Amino acid sequence: MAFATAEYKERMRKTKERMESQGIEVLLITDPANMNYLTGYDGWSFYVHQLLVVMIDEDEPIWIGRAMDANCAKLTTWLYRDNIIPYPDGYVQSDTHHPMDFVSDILAQIGQSNRSIGVEMDTYYFTAKCYEQLRKGLPNAGFRDATLLVNWVRLIKSDQEIDYMRKAARLVEKAMQEGMDMIQAGVRECDVAAKILHAQVAGTEQFGGDYPSIMPLIPAGMKTSTPHLTWSDDLFRQGDAVILELTGCYRRYHSPLARTVSIGQPSEQLKALSEIVQEGINACLEGIGPGMPCEAIEEIWLKTIAKSGIVKESRLGYPVGLSYPPDWGEHTASLRKGDKTILQPNMTFHLIPGIWKDDFGFEVSETFRVTEKGCETLADFPRELVIKAEMTENSTAAMKELKQNRAYFS
Amino acid sequence: MAFATAEYKERMRKTKERMESQGIEVLLITDPANMNYLTGYDGWSFYVHQLLVVMIDEDEPIWIGRAMDANCAKLTTWLYRDNIIPYPDGYVQSDTHHPMDFVSDILAQIGQSNRSIGVEMDTYYFTAKCYEQLRKGLPNAGFRDATLLVNWVRLIKSDQEIDYMRKAARLVEKAMQEGMDMIQAGVRECDVAAKILHAQVAGTEQFGGDYPSIMPLIPAGMKTSTPHLTWSDDLFRQGDAVILELTGCYRRYHSPLARTVSIGQPSEQLKALSEIVQEGINACLEGIGPGMPCEAIEEIWLKTIAKSGIVKESRLGYPVGLSYPPDWGEHTASLRKGDKTILQPNMTFHLIPGIWKDDFGFEVSETFRVTEKGCETLADFPRELVIKAEMTENSTAAMKELKQNRAYFS
Repeated sequence: MAFATAEYKERMRKTKERMESQGIEVLLITDPANMNYLTGYDGWSFYVHQLLVVMIDEDEPIWIGRAMDANCAKLTTWLYRDNIIPYPDGYVQSDTHHPMDFVSDILAQIGQSNRSIGVEMDTYYFTAKCYEQLRKGLPNAGFRDATLLVNWVRLIKSDQEIDYMRKAARLVEKAMQEGMDMIQAGVRECDVAAKILHAQVAGTEQFGGDYPSIMPLIPAGMKTSTPHLTWSDDLFRQGDAVILELTGCYRRYHSPLARTVSIGQPSEQLKALSEIVQEGINACLEGIGPGMPCEAIEEIWLKTIAKSGIVKESRLGYPVGLSYPPDWGEHTASLRKGDKTILQPNMTFHLIPGIWKDDFGFEVSETFRVTEKGCETLADFPRELVIKAEMTENSTAAMKELKQNRAYFS
Repeated sequence: MAFATAEYKERMRKTKERMESQGIEVLLITDPANMNYLTGYDGWSFYVHQLLVVMIDEDEPIWIGRAMDANCAKLTTWLYRDNIIPYPDGYVQSDTHHPMDFVSDILAQIGQSNRSIGVEMDTYYFTAKCYEQLRKGLPNAGFRDATLLVNWVRLIKSDQEIDYMRKAARLVEKAMQEGMDMIQAGVRECDVAAKILHAQVAGTEQFGGDYPSIMPLIPAGMKTSTPHLTWSDDLFRQGDAVILELTGCYRRYHSPLARTVSIGQPSEQLKALSEIVQEGINACLEGIGPGMPCEAIEEIWLKTIAKSGIVKESRLGYPVGLSYPPDWGEHTASLRKGDKTILQPNMTFHLIPGIWKDDFGFEVSETFRVTEKGCETLADFPRELVIKAEMTENSTAAMKELKQNRAYFS
């Protein structure tokens, strides 16, 4: 397991504290990150329905999932075997048997069917159908929205969690550098993506990496006008700007980082945009400290870039840490107007003042930890717009190396 | 775009045909694979709420999503720009504004609020909260469960789709071979995973690969008792069996493949298990043909392995093709008792008779296409349990190569 049992138990205690204050007696946890946070459970089984049952008056949660994943629960959690309850395979993707019918039966059998039940209403893996079946199966239960209940517990990290995020930062530094080194006119996007994935996962001699909750985002040229494109077989072209938004992931903990590269000289407008955005992010990082509300970070940003006329319509950032696909964000606080969440030491955010215009964009980002006095970035990587020189002898050498690379891998 | 506009329009026609027969006037599509299938939309933006509105009496669907992803819709779909409707960023992960409130407003504005509306009730990305907000926002609409409506249209592939799956099969052959070649006692799981990911994405000289909807599953030793473990920094050990369940992905089309490797001589029980499972899968592949129901494949399996006393509690397979994380399966038919879906040419399934016991397991699988007369596997890869020799001069050479590999990548 990634943490000592005592740390999981402390997380359980904090979760129950929140359950208590929200009048929830039984909490059904469907977010895989929350399942992992409370028990250590770690497997790519979240594509079928599975959950934890946390009861206010029981020490241990119950894991309910597909039969073939019960051994995964035995191997990766601190739970007693009696608390691992498998459902038969006939409940998988069936139009007659829904896993939540099985869950309702279990809850009835253990005397929980009349209680106040919290469900994660807006979690990817808690579908409309899940809720409908639970309501049918447990007509006497009182349902409450417990979306993000555990996510809020996750907001302040333990030192061990910070250590994992620092390791993730080492991984993203490596992946970012290798990706940047390889980007050149004439290189395929997929080859750069492959190299980045290799670096993210092979990691260092000391430790390897886990799969990232978001795949490498590496839009180029016109495609930088939108942030969430992955890659294709297209070749990078001379004059393209390329945005790299990547993460390292260590034991499911993430440290995202974004940078922008120009293949050859950047346009005047990209250069101007990059300068003002860097001024903005630098001012934010200097100004961030414990005791201030999230929205104050956006105020620093707005004040710094006011002179430029640039408008950023999207939020400036969000908390990160433990996660599973499809997102590395924690979905609680946002760095935007109206968010009064007070920053405290060991909170960790991805600060991402990306700007996407109609035909180009620029990103630079940092994952930072709030410290006792200010903040620190987890990765150590220059923030400047990187300018790759025109094809020279050097880059011809790079192309040769690329060919050797392909030969090695084929 | 991955297909001609005519193919997308044909898919729309088939979708409307099903809407008609199910009494659905407006279909809200939240499954990213279904969004891609109908419009080409392709971005890692499914971690925020987004959807398509398909109206029975309108030619084109409407895309509604986050503002920063509207350019992604412009770049990747065949939709007119007027049909791409962005919602402001304040709707993202907010406790006061839900994207489905925005969707309800749009539907009301375009006169769709009193209609019969189909929703994908059991799709990952259609949460309980989505449904609750839509019902509040559209009190006069009649909601119907349209889970899998488009997935059923996807069941029979076009020749172009088959071509993409064949390319995905080339990718998985390569990834499987490179993964197997690298597995040895003393090698870290993460290094093998990194090499596999590299092969999946760098692909061949002719084409690269897309990210797989399920990350490489490579449990070893005791961990083979459960199928959905990814990897760690652990070293493979002499005597370990290792299961590799991988896919290639080309333009979001998948061809999964599973094989098992033994590092050194396998145990008698693993050898016996592998032989009977291979006999079973071979018999199935010989027996499969158009016109038979899905459940008949399981009957062949049961008949073949009856003598062994082996019990497989999980289904034998499921359709595959276009998909996004967290699953490569299509969630419609299943190869199991009671499934009367009739096989037809150009249906494609992942046939996976994996057996997981308490302390070990064995997998071998094939992705097959139903042909006019029988079936064909998309990948060409020996099915035998692979036995890696004890550490010899050869494997010492492999370790040296591994070190060079690490030097190259660092």
